Amino acid sequence: MITYTPVAIRYGETDMMGIVYHANYFLYFEDARTHFLREAGMPYSEIEAAGYMCPVYRAEIDYAMPLRYGQRAIVETRVVKNAPTKTVYEQRVFLEDDDPQTAKPHVKAFITACTVDRETFKPVSIKRELPYLYEGYNKLVEPEV
Amino acid sequence: MITYTPVAIRYGETDMMGIVYHANYFLYFEDARTHFLREAGMPYSEIEAAGYMCPVYRAEIDYAMPLRYGQRAIVETRVVKNAPTKTVYEQRVFLEDDDPQTAKPHVKAFITACTVDRETFKPVSIKRELPYLYEGYNKLVEPEV
Amino acid sequence: MITYTPVAIRYGETDMMGIVYHANYFLYFEDARTHFLREAGMPYSEIEAAGYMCPVYRAEIDYAMPLRYGQRAIVETRVVKNAPTKTVYEQRVFLEDDDPQTAKPHVKAFITACTVDRETFKPVSIKRELPYLYEGYNKLVEPEV
Amino acid sequence: MITYTPVAIRYGETDMMGIVYHANYFLYFEDARTHFLREAGMPYSEIEAAGYMCPVYRAEIDYAMPLRYGQRAIVETRVVKNAPTKTVYEQRVFLEDDDPQTAKPHVKAFITACTVDRETFKPVSIKRELPYLYEGYNKLVEPEV
Repeated sequence: MITYTPVAIRYGETDMMGIVYHANYFLYFEDARTHFLREAGMPYSEIEAAGYMCPVYRAEIDYAMPLRYGQRAIVETRVVKNAPTKTVYEQRVFLEDDDPQTAKPHVKAFITACTVDRETFKPVSIKRELPYLYEGYNKLVEPEV
Repeated sequence: MITYTPVAIRYGETDMMGIVYHANYFLYFEDARTHFLREAGMPYSEIEAAGYMCPVYRAEIDYAMPLRYGQRAIVETRVVKNAPTKTVYEQRVFLEDDDPQTAKPHVKAFITACTVDRETFKPVSIKRELPYLYEGYNKLVEPEV
Repeated sequence: MITYTPVAIRYGETDMMGIVYHANYFLYFEDARTHFLREAGMPYSEIEAAGYMCPVYRAEIDYAMPLRYGQRAIVETRVVKNAPTKTVYEQRVFLEDDDPQTAKPHVKAFITACTVDRETFKPVSIKRELPYLYEGYNKLVEPEV
Repeated sequence: MITYTPVAIRYGETDMMGIVYHANYFLYFEDARTHFLREAGMPYSEIEAAGYMCPVYRAEIDYAMPLRYGQRAIVETRVVKNAPTKTVYEQRVFLEDDDPQTAKPHVKAFITACTVDRETFKPVSIKRELPYLYEGYNKLVEPEV
């Protein structure tokens, strides 16, 4: 499964270079992962309700072309790797009118999320503790771009 | 009591106008109130540990002159009103080298905080539930500028 | 004219209280004003292209009920006062399913924007320098709620 | 050269997990790089004044242990690679009382910055256009941790 999530670029998300501040793509990526999980029928709110949270554990981001206020963007999201204790997403940011099959992404990232116990913040194996999530991810894995 | 809290202006806190984004002064004001409470011997961490939180309930802000990246600022903080269910701070932002007695502040605000139960988010009377805080504020009240 | 702008609440816009951090409503309000201007046929990008910017000059915000991640919100926007050197917006935040005619807003604000020269940051009279904007606002003024 | 930059963790930089939101470490890293350049006698403001900017081009971040509000952190910064069109920093976040020689960092990153023309946003060779910067970085390169 691959999802496409529209992103509203907020004025306050720009910086004095006149472009989206590099940290703020994390906000867009996170929105897109939440959308992805909802589309997959495994909403993040259910994971939280079960007593878990999914913090970002590692991120690799390449900034090729900046976005600016007034542009309309979309985030493409896929899971490219799943393991009991971590899930790797590949996420790419395009302009709304770009064709993701052929266009070069403005920004591209691999985001690794883990799952932790909400009280102790200790990492858990989703294979053991949230098997529906582990199996769900497994069915959704796509090759890297 | 009046406190002066130095503020580091972060690059990502600017916007495409080249100035500090107007929302971000709230971050500086909050840091300065935390500093104020610590100086007053009533640290915010103790309020939280007792099961309460102090969200902002109302704010009035005047932006006279923008701050820019690279400038060094200070936030002046005083309590100007105390009541069982709310506390009003007056906070003013100056450049580090300004004389707060005579300089015009760059930004100035009245920030009203209330105290709520951490679980229910219901407002509480600090006069009844945290009397040390109520009495503490009372001793610190200063006239408005 | 009154506009209603949907708002996506981002995870990173929450704070450790579990609610939208109070400063971040400014981002929502700004998005909504941009939407308002576009609907009014006077897009902000044209104002910038003409060499001007519209920083926030004053804000008054009342926080009645917090928003949380996962909620869907809308911002209601109207102009309630127009003058040559400033424009006052009244903006109110509701849940998407609220009826703005009868519901109590979660957050409500009066935001005063001025217009400044992009190079000098000096305030200008839009009545003189951008008469289409001044006349446009005049036609849109609504009574305060 | 290795620099250590103290970081004030702001309340609004936390998220509803109760920890510093993962994007916000970028703000700390950027502050620390600005500090590093100042200490190196090549302040960022001079690079900007010369008509250039240094956006982040690539980032790799590992989040091992979260930071929380009230903690005092430091960012350790070193340059680990220098090339005509990019500079790679290794940056690590510790608690103030940690010993960076022996402690495990809370967060660790490799941040690659490039240099671009301020008007065109085109990448430039600092070896050619800002030789003092290129030579300066060269003298400062340290081995990776």
